[in-house]
Amino acid sequence: MEYIQQKFDVNFSYNVFFSSNLFDTSNKCLSSFLESNAATAYTKKLLVILDGGVANAHPTLTQQISTYLSQVKGFQLAPEIITIKGGEQVKNDLPLLFELVDAVDKYKIDRHSYVIGIGGGSLLDLVGFVAAISHRGVKHIRIPTTVLSQNDSGVGVKNGVNYKGKKNFLGSFAPPAAVFNDSNFLTTLDDRDWRSGMAEAVKVSLIKDAEFFKKIEATAEAITAGDMAAMQEQIQRCAELHIQHIGGAGDPFESGSSRPLDFGHWSAHKLEQLTNFSLRHGEAVSIGIAVDTVYSHLIGWISEADMQRVLQVLKHMKLPIWHALLEKQNNNPSPVVIGLEEFREHLGGQLTISLLRAIGKGEEVHEIDLELLYKAVDICKNNQ
Amino acid sequence: MEYIQQKFDVNFSYNVFFSSNLFDTSNKCLSSFLESNAATAYTKKLLVILDGGVANAHPTLTQQISTYLSQVKGFQLAPEIITIKGGEQVKNDLPLLFELVDAVDKYKIDRHSYVIGIGGGSLLDLVGFVAAISHRGVKHIRIPTTVLSQNDSGVGVKNGVNYKGKKNFLGSFAPPAAVFNDSNFLTTLDDRDWRSGMAEAVKVSLIKDAEFFKKIEATAEAITAGDMAAMQEQIQRCAELHIQHIGGAGDPFESGSSRPLDFGHWSAHKLEQLTNFSLRHGEAVSIGIAVDTVYSHLIGWISEADMQRVLQVLKHMKLPIWHALLEKQNNNPSPVVIGLEEFREHLGGQLTISLLRAIGKGEEVHEIDLELLYKAVDICKNNQ
Ligand SMILES: NC(=O)c1ccc[n+]([C@@H]2O[C@H](COP(=O)([O-])OP(=O)(O)OC[C@H]3O[C@@H](n4cnc5c(N)ncnc54)[C@H](O)[C@@H]3O)[C@@H](O)[C@H]2O)c1
Ligand SMILES: NC(=O)c1ccc[n+]([C@@H]2O[C@H](COP(=O)([O-])OP(=O)(O)OC[C@H]3O[C@@H](n4cnc5c(N)ncnc54)[C@H](O)[C@@H]3O)[C@@H](O)[C@H]2O)c1
Ligand SMILES: [Zn+2]
Ligand SMILES: [Zn+2]
Repeated sequence: MEYIQQKFDVNFSYNVFFSSNLFDTSNKCLSSFLESNAATAYTKKLLVILDGGVANAHPTLTQQISTYLSQVKGFQLAPEIITIKGGEQVKNDLPLLFELVDAVDKYKIDRHSYVIGIGGGSLLDLVGFVAAISHRGVKHIRIPTTVLSQNDSGVGVKNGVNYKGKKNFLGSFAPPAAVFNDSNFLTTLDDRDWRSGMAEAVKVSLIKDAEFFKKIEATAEAITAGDMAAMQEQIQRCAELHIQHIGGAGDPFESGSSRPLDFGHWSAHKLEQLTNFSLRHGEAVSIGIAVDTVYSHLIGWISEADMQRVLQVLKHMKLPIWHALLEKQNNNPSPVVIGLEEFREHLGGQLTISLLRAIGKGEEVHEIDLELLYKAVDICKNNQ
Repeated sequence: MEYIQQKFDVNFSYNVFFSSNLFDTSNKCLSSFLESNAATAYTKKLLVILDGGVANAHPTLTQQISTYLSQVKGFQLAPEIITIKGGEQVKNDLPLLFELVDAVDKYKIDRHSYVIGIGGGSLLDLVGFVAAISHRGVKHIRIPTTVLSQNDSGVGVKNGVNYKGKKNFLGSFAPPAAVFNDSNFLTTLDDRDWRSGMAEAVKVSLIKDAEFFKKIEATAEAITAGDMAAMQEQIQRCAELHIQHIGGAGDPFESGSSRPLDFGHWSAHKLEQLTNFSLRHGEAVSIGIAVDTVYSHLIGWISEADMQRVLQVLKHMKLPIWHALLEKQNNNPSPVVIGLEEFREHLGGQLTISLLRAIGKGEEVHEIDLELLYKAVDICKNNQ
């Protein structure tokens, strides 16, 4: 049997910039990036899709964006800045997805032009997917405006929308052209969004960096009370660890079953869905971290003291560590626990769950003892 | 301004196998591939999506596929083989796209399982896109059943569907896990499909391989009359040249504007659309090749004799070399010619058109002289 072998590498690279007041005309961070990517022979286009929550909180922003981007040399800004609602609901809205595809078409955004998403992780996931499938992929720039999107979701390579209630069922891997984190956006966050984003920092510190976890412990209360400088530092380190893992662990597009950055997430995704997204992603992750940490203790991997440190830091952040849906319901299995299989399916392959071998060190298992798991849930309940 | 740099390579590889009677239980080509990719810890799944045109022409095929795939170790075949209509219409049908996404969900095809598309280039483009966006990409295997899909579309890395009349407006780059070319399928092709696929061989020979063009000239009439051995040889060389270009020219996912494999395609895509896809892709490409070849002669790049050789070979294949929509319509510009801008948009960046510097050597231009173009159209008309 004859065959021809195909084999090639594709190189991906992008920068994640940290700045503030990006659309201040004196701030050249974004305009220099764009201008360094301008072409001589033709004008590239820009289409901005903006989170309504951000627009409401920053009433002059739309005008500022227009003014700023109209002045970038070699680029033409689409006549309309598209403002859509924000939050998880935008990922549950296929007609909206197609409206945005229509805008890419209408404003003639080609494969050398840019779609700029400005908003929380939900908006960025939607906009990234729209960009990825239009013309087989137009370039996209992410400007994350929440803690969670600045420290995790916005700096990575994934996008996605929910489909028939299944979290991120549709999506792709499509690295951005660049990411711009603007600390100024964080000043208008709802308290819940300010706090819940920190769950991803706790997560990544627990599986990768004990020193960072210590730092998080030391600053948790101050950040929770609003310390912006400490938050900035935490975001930057958290983003860096995510970026290093994606680029450095050898499987950026997740072809294997190993997914350490999903520590605490198997239950989190299901909890989000079952609560109809009334839990924030970060809040659900906090619960997921708590349960999987206690479970790690119950199988003898971490000490009770270390387990308590983890629960304590989440409590200092005023994040939840338990949810009623994790319990058996009238002697039936918990609907979250049933979701383990759905999680396996979404990742593909063998069930692979990250647990803690130590603070700062994740390790994977392929089986979960359900009785121990329910015991872990109980301990979380009693530790609230 | 601080930043973190992300940078990584993703390696892609897959084989294109040549075989016949793939689903004969004695043929181990496909089953060995699958079994070598089985896992010990869990069972992978298979979902087959089959072209109705192929199913009709091969009445025992569905049963054969079931029998064959049920015996593959480590895999579980979905209880249903999904047969959909074939041809370009499947790329104009968003509800169908979502039905297939639903099937991926229903049959629990995860990121380690395989969707197997069997059919012409249209079905493969649709199925490849469904696979690419479900769970952020499930694996897909292509079994092309037309000349065109075996020598070109099925062996590459692109997928796509049409959107609001725009050819391939939605799609992505997603290399298959493997491709299996089965010559037996070709025996039932409609005469038009048998012949039109050869246009892609003419195309790639003209831009890359003068020897291959000579071979095509020598065999054109025999293949047109049905010579399967010669067709097989042509398909294999054509596939090889496409594979080499994609893997070897440094831009497999087309981030630049250079697209030599699209020689003759700017007008072809528009002609397909304007004729409501009553022209086959290969027929439209034949016309596109003719026009751009004559244009290459008119700007002094190739001799009249070479131009005539190209027109001749297309005529020997009984392929069209002209279409009325290429002409001015009542002193208004040709609607195909207006499509030049649309083509530029779809590729992105500067207008980039491949022409012939010689037989076997493509070269790009960034401008087209419209008067010369209309003259080229006229010459094609008179040479039919
Ligand atoms: N792609 C990935 O790799 C990845 C990783 C983690 C999480 N996610 C996804 O990210 C989503 C969660 O994103 P999120 O936590 O950023 O929340 P979000 O995007 O859902 O936004 C929450 C709310 O905050 C508002 N908002 C956003 N920025 C604001 C600002 N600066 N001021 C005032 N209000 C503002 C929004 O309008 C919304 O109402 C989830 O869908 C999750 O699955 C994706
Ligand atoms: N992805 C790419 O890189 C790429 C490249 C070139 C072309 N294409 C696309 O491929 C499509 C054209 O594909 P095509 O030329 O293979 O035609 P097709 O898929 O449209 O099929 C043509 C007809 O042949 C029938 N058919 C298929 N196999 C048969 C068989 N073995 N016996 C009997 N009938 C059979 C189909 O049912 C259909 O009616 C176009 O949409 C074109 O844009 C894609
Ligand atoms: Zn998360
Ligand atoms: Zn083609």
